[in-house]
Amino acid sequence: MLEDKNTQKTSLAELGEFGLINHITQYFKINHSTTIKAIGDDAAVIDASKKQTLLTTDLLIEGVHFDLSYMPLKHLGYKAVMVNLSDVYAMNGEAEQITVSIAVSNRFPLEAIEELYAGIQLACDTYNVDLIGGDTTSSTKGILISVTAVGKANKEEIVYRDGAKETDLIVVSGDLGAAYLGLQVLEREKQVFQVDPNNQPDLDNYTYLIERQLKPEARKDIVGLFKELDIKPTSMIDISDGLSSELFHICTQSKVGCKIYEDKLPLDPQVISACEEFELDSTMVALSGGEDYELLFTVPIAHFDKIKGNPNFSIIGHVTAENQGLQLITRANQEIELKAQGWNALKA
Amino acid sequence: MLEDKNTQKTSLAELGEFGLINHITQYFKINHSTTIKAIGDDAAVIDASKKQTLLTTDLLIEGVHFDLSYMPLKHLGYKAVMVNLSDVYAMNGEAEQITVSIAVSNRFPLEAIEELYAGIQLACDTYNVDLIGGDTTSSTKGILISVTAVGKANKEEIVYRDGAKETDLIVVSGDLGAAYLGLQVLEREKQVFQVDPNNQPDLDNYTYLIERQLKPEARKDIVGLFKELDIKPTSMIDISDGLSSELFHICTQSKVGCKIYEDKLPLDPQVISACEEFELDSTMVALSGGEDYELLFTVPIAHFDKIKGNPNFSIIGHVTAENQGLQLITRANQEIELKAQGWNALKA
Repeated sequence: MLEDKNTQKTSLAELGEFGLINHITQYFKINHSTTIKAIGDDAAVIDASKKQTLLTTDLLIEGVHFDLSYMPLKHLGYKAVMVNLSDVYAMNGEAEQITVSIAVSNRFPLEAIEELYAGIQLACDTYNVDLIGGDTTSSTKGILISVTAVGKANKEEIVYRDGAKETDLIVVSGDLGAAYLGLQVLEREKQVFQVDPNNQPDLDNYTYLIERQLKPEARKDIVGLFKELDIKPTSMIDISDGLSSELFHICTQSKVGCKIYEDKLPLDPQVISACEEFELDSTMVALSGGEDYELLFTVPIAHFDKIKGNPNFSIIGHVTAENQGLQLITRANQEIELKAQGWNALKA
Repeated sequence: MLEDKNTQKTSLAELGEFGLINHITQYFKINHSTTIKAIGDDAAVIDASKKQTLLTTDLLIEGVHFDLSYMPLKHLGYKAVMVNLSDVYAMNGEAEQITVSIAVSNRFPLEAIEELYAGIQLACDTYNVDLIGGDTTSSTKGILISVTAVGKANKEEIVYRDGAKETDLIVVSGDLGAAYLGLQVLEREKQVFQVDPNNQPDLDNYTYLIERQLKPEARKDIVGLFKELDIKPTSMIDISDGLSSELFHICTQSKVGCKIYEDKLPLDPQVISACEEFELDSTMVALSGGEDYELLFTVPIAHFDKIKGNPNFSIIGHVTAENQGLQLITRANQEIELKAQGWNALKA
């Protein structure tokens, strides 16, 4: 990437915390009448009216969750919001507000923080969410972002993880494994760049994979689609740690087993070709890759007709009795036991 | 402090994220009927009924906000909660729920995290707050805690920063400057320890200062006292960055000026003697020290009788017209202009 090294940078220390907050937030506008007071007091004020409030929070840390050598700051800001909105949608709710706390070391100039907030703002605009607060401080190393998202839903609309019932269909939105492979491609290009900085990578075959890694979209549209189709899932979770790990959560909390079919796992053609190139098993990638931010949910079998023809959905299996455990039926029709092999942040 | 170096420590990597979450949260119970779903789904669910929701968040980072060489982890957990509850009380609300996200490097064993959560739990029990969620991950360096607190208040009870009116009394709860001096004492003892680890410090003269630094209490009692006395402040803020900085926030947002009196600033005797010892000006310490977590508020002058005799309150001045600016009247009856000299985290 080319950049003008002579550009004047503004130091954060010069601006101070309150200066920075004012500077960053001046372009954010408030969209929801439920946002009574956003930034600028000790706490934000939200009017929940008669709905229930959904609250979720996630922490992203440089060197653990992202690498700035290939993650542009604007994308990082966008992704940090998506990761949280995804959790609100996974409750079948509407996201309305977020708080964003950041800690940055002094190596970052103001312009870097502006980039980060440009991504946050794009996410707020696109998903119709108000930024209502946060905290801004320095770090001794790198950058970290802590986002809390607030959503609303009528009590009877909320979908928990513990409602899956035997014979329910198991469905995922979108496709799986692409974000993980995008990360592999970016890691490989980083190595190549370190050996030969003049090498111009050809990433045409990986555009979808890279986009899924750098600019994931939370599935707000699916929550809308449920309303249109008059479907309320019996259980739901977002796929952040990998399909296996999320199936474990649903089955454990619902006290059921499940049977899923290898040949039903939705894979993009780029996932299949990249798996060949990287000598990875595409089923393993779909099961354990993580960061897909798709929705995994269960619905009564009576909804089969509404689900099956919809290009947003793939029926990957069905719910069984608890004593059946979690089974994967392979293409060779073998039954193998599923293990939760999702990403473990504490081993990083 | 003596400790058994042979104690078996449990590695966090071994336990994994979900194992750690289960382990930590097993002793937390839910106290509020408004807490519909706490930990264990994509998002927590809160029933706001007819009240408005207050939301605030703060980030504490090792090496910036605390030093583990004199901050025990249990105290750190307790303080991280206090810092956030203080913001809810500063809105005249009741705190009911918190989320806690932590990132820790692998140098911390499970037992250290247990200590941290013991402090969080003590805070939850003492202040009647439910832990409803969070995120647990690794860091590349040190430990950081991000807490979000949720509170409730009737719409007409909420106190913002922008309601101060000319002639209102300016009042603070408790006393000022002690937490800052506690930090100076602890920093000095750290230096002494580094030179001579066998030196046994005598901290008897500083117990109040150290307690204010290591174990601050948020002023929930003051919110209760307002109800008892039938007082609704016209504006309120908690004193985290220093009195001057908070006065600036109130005056700027309320579009007023203020006059405060040096001889009215509430100082503990330990603050006065420690200021002499450290050759610090006690007024500067009271104005700019920070971390007091007391409440600064304004009330109509009609409430004078309710406030003046109460040992929890000190009337330190009154609100003036905006064009009067922010004035400090010294003991020598000189007028000097106040500057916001609060702590700037971005210069750290």
